[in-house]
Amino acid sequence: MEKVKLGIIGFGTIGFQHAKALTSGKVPNCTLVAIADIDEKKRESARNLYGESLAVFSTAEELIASTLVEAIHICVPHYLHPVYGIAGLKNGKHIMVEKPAGVYTKQVQELNEEARKHPELVFGVMFNQRTNPLYQKVRELVTSGELGEITRTNWIITNWFRAQSYYDQSPWRATWKGEGGGVLLNQNPHNLDLFQWICGMPSRIRSQVYYGKHRDIEVEDDVYAIFEYPNGATGCYITTIADAPGTNRLEICGDRGKIVVENDSIVFHRLRESCSAFNARFIGGIGQPECWKIEIPTKGTYTSHCGILQNFCDAILHGTSLMVPGEEGIKGLALSNAIHLSSWQEGNWVSLPIDADLYYDLLQHKIRNSKK
Amino acid sequence: MEKVKLGIIGFGTIGFQHAKALTSGKVPNCTLVAIADIDEKKRESARNLYGESLAVFSTAEELIASTLVEAIHICVPHYLHPVYGIAGLKNGKHIMVEKPAGVYTKQVQELNEEARKHPELVFGVMFNQRTNPLYQKVRELVTSGELGEITRTNWIITNWFRAQSYYDQSPWRATWKGEGGGVLLNQNPHNLDLFQWICGMPSRIRSQVYYGKHRDIEVEDDVYAIFEYPNGATGCYITTIADAPGTNRLEICGDRGKIVVENDSIVFHRLRESCSAFNARFIGGIGQPECWKIEIPTKGTYTSHCGILQNFCDAILHGTSLMVPGEEGIKGLALSNAIHLSSWQEGNWVSLPIDADLYYDLLQHKIRNSKK
Repeated sequence: MEKVKLGIIGFGTIGFQHAKALTSGKVPNCTLVAIADIDEKKRESARNLYGESLAVFSTAEELIASTLVEAIHICVPHYLHPVYGIAGLKNGKHIMVEKPAGVYTKQVQELNEEARKHPELVFGVMFNQRTNPLYQKVRELVTSGELGEITRTNWIITNWFRAQSYYDQSPWRATWKGEGGGVLLNQNPHNLDLFQWICGMPSRIRSQVYYGKHRDIEVEDDVYAIFEYPNGATGCYITTIADAPGTNRLEICGDRGKIVVENDSIVFHRLRESCSAFNARFIGGIGQPECWKIEIPTKGTYTSHCGILQNFCDAILHGTSLMVPGEEGIKGLALSNAIHLSSWQEGNWVSLPIDADLYYDLLQHKIRNSKK
Repeated sequence: MEKVKLGIIGFGTIGFQHAKALTSGKVPNCTLVAIADIDEKKRESARNLYGESLAVFSTAEELIASTLVEAIHICVPHYLHPVYGIAGLKNGKHIMVEKPAGVYTKQVQELNEEARKHPELVFGVMFNQRTNPLYQKVRELVTSGELGEITRTNWIITNWFRAQSYYDQSPWRATWKGEGGGVLLNQNPHNLDLFQWICGMPSRIRSQVYYGKHRDIEVEDDVYAIFEYPNGATGCYITTIADAPGTNRLEICGDRGKIVVENDSIVFHRLRESCSAFNARFIGGIGQPECWKIEIPTKGTYTSHCGILQNFCDAILHGTSLMVPGEEGIKGLALSNAIHLSSWQEGNWVSLPIDADLYYDLLQHKIRNSKK
């Protein structure tokens, strides 16, 4: 079988996981040929694990320049995702970027622009949760029109508990300079991507964000956001790292009923008659359309990281469509940036697309004023 | 059995229901002796139903002045609740006020002040949902300390669907002048009372409120509110009349876990070790306290309106403590007023207690500018 020769930049937690999967043959159309890390201990660890079978570089630049690799998986801290993404594309490499695509949209716009200059190169982003049959099915119910036009969204995604010790592991964690954000940027990218993938992008957002409320960190750890969508629908997004046990409950209301995703199952409360049609014809004061409670089956396997990498390599080898085109990485990030931007402007409405320059400037201000 | 002689002011939907229950003997310690209504048709209907057995008055004032009645149940439109409450107290009558206690807190403060002048008179408010064993049990779990200190509250209470025809029934419905509010004032008083009864009063509120978004009305029909409590806990309250089927899901997080009330059942996700203790000792990055999923039993009967009236009469006859002292009616109303006040001030934070005069002035402004 033809295989893509892949290099991983960053042999930290996630880089290690991907390397392990690849060297175990879990992605049949991909072969790991190189690793780069600036930390000698991590390089040593890579050499001990894989010996002569792969090249180990001490800088990202060397790996990017190497003719050994056709494709690069970027597993370094968030700020560097677009930096190495752009460098890789300029060096003719296919690019897979870990989530989030970057820290601020201005930076990711530049990555997307570079990608547009290289239509011959494949550019993906690691939103592995899009391979979850649960969310694929919810999206299918929405896009097929079964739910009718969306009227309200509500995601309580508070099951990201992190103790103080998590933040104390590394000095760059949960700092403006090191990570550029907290729960929205580190834990939530998957949820924010799925939210927009299923329900679409809102037209504006307002928020109430708490910074260092529950943990000794300077970034956000508790978030309430209200969304307004182009069609007039509204929504609410709640997240934190402080709730144990947290909740993961996505509710989407539409003209034909309500979908609730919780405990790994989908319940569709389906109206026999649409809400709008009922409202238009009903003459009786209090009453509502007949509603059926339906347990929705899902099918397929949650292939996760390996599924995304397999698809990425299929795109390189055979021109297969990407499950998550890299250009889409900016969408969830824009939600995250907009939530902060509203909070930094007293919770007022922020329209999307956001003012990317303003966000960049305010973030730099946070970095300059950091006490961490 | 000794019985309280009760008069009902207002023989509309709810007055009729109470009269029916009382004349069917469902409140053994209470006898209905009089009804007042300004509408001759309703008086006629009362005469036809009950004949000579009770006095029928054409004004509230006559009933209030009548020596036939010891206690008065006020079942007229919201604005008049405090008006007749005060008049009744001044005439030496015990008072039961339908929910809400009034439309704005300034008016209800006056009612409460009048009640304080008459400690010999019993003053109750019809928050019948406080007799629901479900909410009694949740409150007991919170107040007994089982949940630990509250950290987050979240009530999605969107199961108040009303079609346009509901609002078209009467010209006073859903107008600033006629009702003084929409979903918060007509449908939500029970929820707002239970919310504060169980979780306590917040110290400040900010909101996003939509007026006439879903129906041809001038008042609110879609509400998002964020609460902050004195101990630093936060919360979210979402309500509407537009969702079918709506949701009624109350989630309360505390240092010892999470309570979820939905589908008439209580699930307590109980931590073996408190969240704060775990956070202080845990050294491992990602991990959380052991959690037990517990189905909480409830006991007792949901006695509802009859239970509240029975208790009211017991208080009159035997000095029994009230389940819902009238003075507490102002609390849920203050939440409702604060949510509007924030919305009228661009969604900024509004501290509690609210500025009652400001609210009154802004409400008068709404009434003057009404196009209904």
